[in-house]
Amino acid sequence: MANKAITSRDIDFAAWYTDVVNAAHLASYSNVKGCIILEPNGYAIWERMQLELDRMFKETGHKNVAMPMLIPENLMKKEGDLINGFAPEVAWVTIGGQKELEERMCIRPTSETLFSDYYASVVKSYRDLPLKYNQWCSVMRWEKETRPFLRSREFWWQEGHTVHATKEEAEAETRGMLNIYKTFFEDFLAIPPITGRKTEREKFAGADYTLTIEALMYNGVSLQSGTSHYFGQRFSKAYGIEFLNKENKLENVYQTSWGVSSRMIGALIMVHGDDDGLVLPPNIAPIQACIIPIGNDDEVKEVTNTIYNKLKEASILVNIDNSEKTPGFKFAEAEVNGIPVRIEIGPRDLENNEITLTRRDTKKKIKVSLDKDIVLAVKELMNSIQKNLYNKALERRNSMTYECHKLEEVEEIMNNHPGFVKAMWCGNDECELKMKEIRGTKSRCILEQEKPIDNKCIVCGKEATNLVVWGIQY
Amino acid sequence: MANKAITSRDIDFAAWYTDVVNAAHLASYSNVKGCIILEPNGYAIWERMQLELDRMFKETGHKNVAMPMLIPENLMKKEGDLINGFAPEVAWVTIGGQKELEERMCIRPTSETLFSDYYASVVKSYRDLPLKYNQWCSVMRWEKETRPFLRSREFWWQEGHTVHATKEEAEAETRGMLNIYKTFFEDFLAIPPITGRKTEREKFAGADYTLTIEALMYNGVSLQSGTSHYFGQRFSKAYGIEFLNKENKLENVYQTSWGVSSRMIGALIMVHGDDDGLVLPPNIAPIQACIIPIGNDDEVKEVTNTIYNKLKEASILVNIDNSEKTPGFKFAEAEVNGIPVRIEIGPRDLENNEITLTRRDTKKKIKVSLDKDIVLAVKELMNSIQKNLYNKALERRNSMTYECHKLEEVEEIMNNHPGFVKAMWCGNDECELKMKEIRGTKSRCILEQEKPIDNKCIVCGKEATNLVVWGIQY
Repeated sequence: MANKAITSRDIDFAAWYTDVVNAAHLASYSNVKGCIILEPNGYAIWERMQLELDRMFKETGHKNVAMPMLIPENLMKKEGDLINGFAPEVAWVTIGGQKELEERMCIRPTSETLFSDYYASVVKSYRDLPLKYNQWCSVMRWEKETRPFLRSREFWWQEGHTVHATKEEAEAETRGMLNIYKTFFEDFLAIPPITGRKTEREKFAGADYTLTIEALMYNGVSLQSGTSHYFGQRFSKAYGIEFLNKENKLENVYQTSWGVSSRMIGALIMVHGDDDGLVLPPNIAPIQACIIPIGNDDEVKEVTNTIYNKLKEASILVNIDNSEKTPGFKFAEAEVNGIPVRIEIGPRDLENNEITLTRRDTKKKIKVSLDKDIVLAVKELMNSIQKNLYNKALERRNSMTYECHKLEEVEEIMNNHPGFVKAMWCGNDECELKMKEIRGTKSRCILEQEKPIDNKCIVCGKEATNLVVWGIQY
Repeated sequence: MANKAITSRDIDFAAWYTDVVNAAHLASYSNVKGCIILEPNGYAIWERMQLELDRMFKETGHKNVAMPMLIPENLMKKEGDLINGFAPEVAWVTIGGQKELEERMCIRPTSETLFSDYYASVVKSYRDLPLKYNQWCSVMRWEKETRPFLRSREFWWQEGHTVHATKEEAEAETRGMLNIYKTFFEDFLAIPPITGRKTEREKFAGADYTLTIEALMYNGVSLQSGTSHYFGQRFSKAYGIEFLNKENKLENVYQTSWGVSSRMIGALIMVHGDDDGLVLPPNIAPIQACIIPIGNDDEVKEVTNTIYNKLKEASILVNIDNSEKTPGFKFAEAEVNGIPVRIEIGPRDLENNEITLTRRDTKKKIKVSLDKDIVLAVKELMNSIQKNLYNKALERRNSMTYECHKLEEVEEIMNNHPGFVKAMWCGNDECELKMKEIRGTKSRCILEQEKPIDNKCIVCGKEATNLVVWGIQY
């Protein structure tokens, strides 16, 4: 009995995605072209993501700040690769306070320039280092095609920017933050990402190298879900971030930046969602359990309140749906919103001294005696859902990851049942571009830890050292 | 022994304010004209404010959303008073993705227009109402003169926007949110504000009426610190927000908006700060207690860790200053940063089986035996500091609030020792403007609950019904 407002996922994945975004009231298009509105249900997920990530950032010594949202053109231009990378897609403010500005300013597409300018003014000595700052904000990139969460002109993210006295420390930070993202994806989003290094062609404009986490969606399309960049001294040379090192000599700092965005909500939808709507892992769900009382019975009310209070005291994110809608409507709504555990309390169950828990992932119903510990029952169920979602996503990712040795194999896969393709690559731009001819297949990342599966480049047949994961991307 | 980096508050208040902002590392000017950077210490206070207010908003049924940061010109223009009020001070984006835009867009100076446009698309029936949404974001107003926290082109705030089926409900919301702000100021910021209604001249562009909370700074200058607006049906008529009421007739919704901003950090500085820097009320301090171990003694280390863990377990926001600086330097730093309780743990005190607590507000030192409950001691001290700061601020406000019956009295006060002036007013614009000639004295608000203190307008001598608080403003 699938939700009628939602197209079947296997029939039209793109329509299914849009339907879920609408039916679960996550976001809506605004009358500002290319910009979306995060509605309460969508924003609540973003708040949960912020809360957990922010905790992880602070536990590793990072502090939050807020930088201006505008960047003067000359400040933006100091690092050549960055401006070349972003110039085509920024929005320019040219008038302020009814006057033409002497120097136009762009709305930040990313804030390396502002952080670098700030660090240049505050860093003096190795004693000031490292500085590990982060900000939560929205940024603006003038995209042509947009899609809620996946690509929109404005999106919400965090951007960490750090400066260090040594290359080693900065590189450890770059890798450390990637690992935090990986942990967050695995433990909270129940998504098993692959991680690795971007090719030169795909790395961030201005970075020495970019590490990335890539997730596979239900339809086999991959989503770049978070990146961590090592800049070396590029920005610190362009912006003059110098410090007196222990030998009392002036040196440029070593720098990193890293970010994840509201795009992760898109990943949640496309990894776990089904034909009834959203499916949220308990560890990231803004509402973990929803109590639906059936009827107006005094006993129903009493049991409802008792259970609500018990769960709330145990820090379970619980609510009661006391609206005037029918129980059937409430069930469907809890389902479409992806609430992990639905708790039905009705007179018939109470006659048997029990209530019914329904898990969102498998739809299975579990009768629980009122003599049992309800907190324990809900917690165990949530653990089971969290694990099941992760395992299902991992199985699916594994079953859709292919080792290829010939271009024809890649073509067959990408044209019929896309996924991650592992294949060797010689490192040449032309071979990378050749892959793109196959339905836009791009390198996702270089797997630095895994053993080579061949010694020849899958495209040119020449010597290859890099094992690369390829995929069609959002 | 005042902090050398800080000008004396009584000698040059403006220089003192700037010095405290710098010395406590709260904010710094950026190379983006008129925009500031919230540095870690400043942003941490803002985070504490957000946390407590957000909790209060959610407890009263409000939900968070995120609207676009850009507003197309035609959407902005739909309500005449609003655009007239804000047109002179907005920033316009005219180029996006390297193309001149067909319609320019401004960076939001406030978001009534966007919320109204959204509500028009989602509200259908009285069953959908009320909708009580809020967003945390930054906004942009092209100010000419700027000052950290008090006035800058970009500032951080929350803006609540609600729509209701009845006038009564919307008016109750307007007043209810003002009360939340008042409670927050009193209980967390330890600032006793006065509250009331703005005059027609001073109300928000587009509002039927504006309620305000006004705080008095140490130097007698008043700061508009938060506002709550009742819009009636103005925006809902301009933007077409209609619903089917219970009688099945189309009706326009009744609307409110309300906001407080990072300006509150300025109020904290100017109400409680002293010549040694910032003084933070414990209920809003990001760090409530700072432990400073003296020397490297094993016993010192052990006691430090034990106390740190006890306080942390009791949810006290505590840190240890383990940096390589001298104890004297650490004391001064804890002081300038306004940390309410400083805990010194040194070998001499330990010989006597005690440690030393120093309260930031009075600088008094208290020896506490290690046999005593340290958590209780710190909590009691924090309560005492919180109360003392509030009482001092209240006393000061009361001693600087004057009842006047003649213009000469107002002149004497504002020219020599400014503060709040209570005086009767006839309601005429000209009399309000006449007051402005006295050092820019403006009406702060109409006190609707208090009894009249005279029957004649202080300016024209004609019949007066409104008791108004007047003051010089930031």
